[in-house]
Amino acid sequence: MTWLRAATGLARHAARRAALARATTPTPGARSAGFHTSALRRRAAAPAPRAVPLSRLTDSFLDGTSSVYLEELQRAWEADPASVDESWDNFFRNFLGQAASPTAGLSGQTIQESMQLLLLVRAYQVNGHMKAALDPLGLDDRAVPEDLDLALYGFTEADLDREFFLGVWMMAGFLSENRPVLTLREILSKLERAYCGPIGFEYMHIPDRDKCNWLREKIETVAPREYPKDRRLVMLDRLIWSTQFENFLATKWATAKRFGLEGGETLIPGMKEMFDRSADLGVENIVIGMPHRGRLNVLGNVVRKPLSQIFSEFAGGTRPVEGEDGLYTGTGDVKYHLGTSYDRPTRGGKRIHLSLVANPSHLEAVDPVVIGKTRAKQFYSNDDDRTKNMGILIHGDGSFAGQGVVYETLHLSALPNYTTGGTIHIVVNNQVAFTTDPRAGRSSQYCTDVAKAVNVPIFHVNGDDLEAVVRVCELAAEWRQTFHSDVVVDLICYRRFGHNEIDEPSFTQPKMYQVIKNHPSSLKLYEQKLLETGEVTKDDVQRIHDKVNRILNEEFAKSKDYVPNKRDWLSAYWTGFKSPEQISRVRNTGVKPEVLKRVGQAITTLPESFKPHRAVKKIFEQRAAMIESGEGIDWAVAEALAFAALIVEGNHVRLSGQDVERGTFSHRHSVVHDQETGAKYCPLDHVVMNQNEELFTVSNRYVC
Amino acid sequence: MTWLRAATGLARHAARRAALARATTPTPGARSAGFHTSALRRRAAAPAPRAVPLSRLTDSFLDGTSSVYLEELQRAWEADPASVDESWDNFFRNFLGQAASPTAGLSGQTIQESMQLLLLVRAYQVNGHMKAALDPLGLDDRAVPEDLDLALYGFTEADLDREFFLGVWMMAGFLSENRPVLTLREILSKLERAYCGPIGFEYMHIPDRDKCNWLREKIETVAPREYPKDRRLVMLDRLIWSTQFENFLATKWATAKRFGLEGGETLIPGMKEMFDRSADLGVENIVIGMPHRGRLNVLGNVVRKPLSQIFSEFAGGTRPVEGEDGLYTGTGDVKYHLGTSYDRPTRGGKRIHLSLVANPSHLEAVDPVVIGKTRAKQFYSNDDDRTKNMGILIHGDGSFAGQGVVYETLHLSALPNYTTGGTIHIVVNNQVAFTTDPRAGRSSQYCTDVAKAVNVPIFHVNGDDLEAVVRVCELAAEWRQTFHSDVVVDLICYRRFGHNEIDEPSFTQPKMYQVIKNHPSSLKLYEQKLLETGEVTKDDVQRIHDKVNRILNEEFAKSKDYVPNKRDWLSAYWTGFKSPEQISRVRNTGVKPEVLKRVGQAITTLPESFKPHRAVKKIFEQRAAMIESGEGIDWAVAEALAFAALIVEGNHVRLSGQDVERGTFSHRHSVVHDQETGAKYCPLDHVVMNQNEELFTVSNRYVC
Repeated sequence: MTWLRAATGLARHAARRAALARATTPTPGARSAGFHTSALRRRAAAPAPRAVPLSRLTDSFLDGTSSVYLEELQRAWEADPASVDESWDNFFRNFLGQAASPTAGLSGQTIQESMQLLLLVRAYQVNGHMKAALDPLGLDDRAVPEDLDLALYGFTEADLDREFFLGVWMMAGFLSENRPVLTLREILSKLERAYCGPIGFEYMHIPDRDKCNWLREKIETVAPREYPKDRRLVMLDRLIWSTQFENFLATKWATAKRFGLEGGETLIPGMKEMFDRSADLGVENIVIGMPHRGRLNVLGNVVRKPLSQIFSEFAGGTRPVEGEDGLYTGTGDVKYHLGTSYDRPTRGGKRIHLSLVANPSHLEAVDPVVIGKTRAKQFYSNDDDRTKNMGILIHGDGSFAGQGVVYETLHLSALPNYTTGGTIHIVVNNQVAFTTDPRAGRSSQYCTDVAKAVNVPIFHVNGDDLEAVVRVCELAAEWRQTFHSDVVVDLICYRRFGHNEIDEPSFTQPKMYQVIKNHPSSLKLYEQKLLETGEVTKDDVQRIHDKVNRILNEEFAKSKDYVPNKRDWLSAYWTGFKSPEQISRVRNTGVKPEVLKRVGQAITTLPESFKPHRAVKKIFEQRAAMIESGEGIDWAVAEALAFAALIVEGNHVRLSGQDVERGTFSHRHSVVHDQETGAKYCPLDHVVMNQNEELFTVSNRYVC
Repeated sequence: MTWLRAATGLARHAARRAALARATTPTPGARSAGFHTSALRRRAAAPAPRAVPLSRLTDSFLDGTSSVYLEELQRAWEADPASVDESWDNFFRNFLGQAASPTAGLSGQTIQESMQLLLLVRAYQVNGHMKAALDPLGLDDRAVPEDLDLALYGFTEADLDREFFLGVWMMAGFLSENRPVLTLREILSKLERAYCGPIGFEYMHIPDRDKCNWLREKIETVAPREYPKDRRLVMLDRLIWSTQFENFLATKWATAKRFGLEGGETLIPGMKEMFDRSADLGVENIVIGMPHRGRLNVLGNVVRKPLSQIFSEFAGGTRPVEGEDGLYTGTGDVKYHLGTSYDRPTRGGKRIHLSLVANPSHLEAVDPVVIGKTRAKQFYSNDDDRTKNMGILIHGDGSFAGQGVVYETLHLSALPNYTTGGTIHIVVNNQVAFTTDPRAGRSSQYCTDVAKAVNVPIFHVNGDDLEAVVRVCELAAEWRQTFHSDVVVDLICYRRFGHNEIDEPSFTQPKMYQVIKNHPSSLKLYEQKLLETGEVTKDDVQRIHDKVNRILNEEFAKSKDYVPNKRDWLSAYWTGFKSPEQISRVRNTGVKPEVLKRVGQAITTLPESFKPHRAVKKIFEQRAAMIESGEGIDWAVAEALAFAALIVEGNHVRLSGQDVERGTFSHRHSVVHDQETGAKYCPLDHVVMNQNEELFTVSNRYVC
């Protein structure tokens, strides 16, 4: 975008340049700085030049002199080609002079024009998102970037129907009809459609060529997908569920806080399509972390927590559960803090296990918890390529931009011992953080800019355009399964009510809420769109509404008799988990001496050919002696023996944190480094035969 | 870089493509997919084509068909131009066919080549830093990016001496001799010199065109500066001070931890030159925050804390100071936590006030403190354009990549109520964080990538190249004073010893420390460089060494008698500050009722034409009644009265944090919003006549 210094502050500097040019007009007759003044004097009579003046393209703060020089030279040449040196005549003729150019082949395209065209295309790829229609409220007052303006490149209306060659690398992207050239009008229309619709793609910051090209292909060659009628009806059904769920709660509990999703209802169909696509591509398990807003809706409609249970909890809070061993109160704090997990059938006929992690009021604190849980699931299910278990994090716009833990979590994403093969981040972007405007909350354009630091693609999407939302949700799923890396969906929506339903947003955002008051719901907009196609009738729509309302009412009726049971909280892995009221028996956690001797040998042995540092060698010899004698066992040996005893019993042991491999005080040495080759050896990886290399994991993190 | 899908995995896919081409060879005589097979059969006899095969430039994962189609078509045309349709003949002839092209003017440059050239130049601007010689240890094993390879663009050795037109926008940057064309060799050599030397510039991510062009100009047109002899001698003197300071401490206290700067000694001359240049450009006050490493060196050599004092504290720790009112022990925790402030004369003949803020062991926690102190200095000195007071933050590579507070601080940088007009960040990049390798500490290439999220330029520099370090330090100062925004200098160096001097780094980084052991100091390298120029003699160098050693020894002698005094801790603003052992008198902090009435009126009055929310209007009426009656004063009114009373006395009052303007519980309403126009009004801004608009500041931050 920015390398076209060509365009730097053209308007601002035009006057200065003109003045400078006058000031430097040389003495008549003198040949100065290489141009003929006679030509200058004849300039008034010459026809207006077609080519963009060189000076327009070479202005800069620092180099006024040479730009003036070029300007004068070009004027002289335009007035009389013979007035300049032959080499310059050749230059202007070949590279700038459209009319005079011998390049006038297919379209009279000059080299200068070709380069300008290439820059124009690139400007769309880099900055097209700045012109995309992202804000459902239409309050977006961003200026269209200067470099998306045709005039900047010297093109005019008159060029729109000329044909241009775009360079061969552009052909697959744009030449769907296998034509070698396109008119400028066609090129622009294709660029506008790809980059300035309801989706703003940010991907040109990704240094990996393959990744970038994969996305470019998807963006430029795949025409915005027309979904068939059956897909559209499914999307409609899902959007009706999302919308009616909130309406229903609002009707039944009019004065309760529920952190509803109104204004961002397309999140639900978006997530469902994302999960369907992920399941098609092999994902079996999804761990979700999210803040308050829309949480009940996600629980009910996406994770499929029974509605009767949600309503029951909403009415009365969580009730203690009687189990085999006493009472369980679960982790219930506030109802929108609760988590749960269920199996959800997918459109493709598979089942996908979803779990929503409980979270505290410090909403982004859940991020590393979700990543850790996902990593654990990958370990326990031998998901070596990390394609079966995936983490999803939903964020608010304010916290994504404002909270350091988001950045810290992103920086874990590609570390060998922390990666989960890519997290999909969805920002439910209210365009306001509680009462704080975006311009008071961050120092960059988008709340998602931090993702650029780790080379992650970012898809901004207008939350009112359901099919665009579905398109980016599917694309995010495909990206994750293809490149095993993070991706961000920025769902730009609004909050129909306040921070919660009993908060008054007009106190602080009056203009925005004037607009919101009159803004139709995304459901209304989608129904209207489908009805206009003629494919879907009013009856089709009404039938779905009736079905949803009927089920909601049935579940509400059931909720009054709902009896929570232990299984709601404690499934599979947690069977036998004690309730807070039970006193645990004191068990003997000791290990037989012969086991300690045996594992003690493993943890003090280095491979024959291995060359440790001499101090480490000595430490290992001392450790071996401690094991042998059973005396003088120090902290490090005791710790290693404890780990080894756990490993022998088949337990996964994981140490992570600052400098844990060596130990901050150089006491642990759980990873030893060969002083000649730099190779590493971790004795605790060799406690049992053919030990899974991740069974014991020790992994450094940064230093603070 | 990446939009050249052209180049996607060329090698990887070449075989597949060739096979595919063979597989799709059509039946002889048949006209298939638009090409004449007769031409194909004649192909062997045709001369090898000069232009890069189209197919090499159009390969992709998804679009094999059309790339094969183009390949075949091109082969057919190469063999016999008449064998393809006239439009295709025209196409190949005009845009690809070098030999046959009528564009063969000055250099026979085709449109395809022009575009390729443009992409090559751009690749250097974007990715040149990937090839820069940044690592003083030479252990950098990064692959040279594919897109810096000439062959990718279809150029060969044979093209090196051909002349090319680069497009007019490139001319000011590269055409220092005002020539319209350059040979490919010249172009490449200029690009390599600008982008692949000891400095790696990252700036193409900055969306602001003016900023980007300003940097491009500096990078491309200013030839790497040759400093005159006098400047070089100053740099040498400063590097000797930096180096000898550490040597001296190491000799006197051989077994003490000092977190010395060895391996990164050029930081000191770099900072000094940065401060000199800043002072030239109007900076009068610099607030510095930094971690342990090099802190004593910065205190002694940059901030000019008396060496005798440093030595005294190093020998005995801080001693209590007797003041007027009792004993002061200062903030002394560990000697490398101490801060101080002094006036330093600059090369340009000015004085600059430097203060180094004390810091805890959580090193990056000092970042927002430095920014806050800088902002306060700006307020109290009426530094409205924020050009006189500047913050400098020095970071470690591990913490810059790992700590969320860095990201949070960066996101404060451009907020109206938090900005300080740009902070210069210097990363003292050890290429290891305590014991953690970079690849275990972050998920992106550089530790500085977070700065890209807020569109900050990043200058990576080889810490062994003193003059390159000075160049980027000066450039950073110029950037800050020109654009009032943050900038990052990534000083890539190494740690000659361990995390501190008594830590053994070979335990965990044996290969790196083998190299470090034999690596000459940056001082040795610079002395050698200067001696080789012949400008500087061995005597010149020795004279400086002798002077520095003499002063160090004198100061050491003085340190034994050094008596700390109160002024070391408590200057100007802090006069009268109580020591921890003094008991403060209980003072009457009350305010006269008539003052409360008067300010009470100010804080409950809204402008005549202002339209508050009706609920807010009511609140303000209630508040006015409380003030009038003096009864039923609630928390919000009491708080506002307290603020107003402070303002009347001329005190600066500043509230910052989450939703502080309205108050989380909607109780404060210190900023009121007009419901029709969206205009804001803050009553506490109008307590006294002509009140400075920053005297009372209330400013929201994000929501967590």
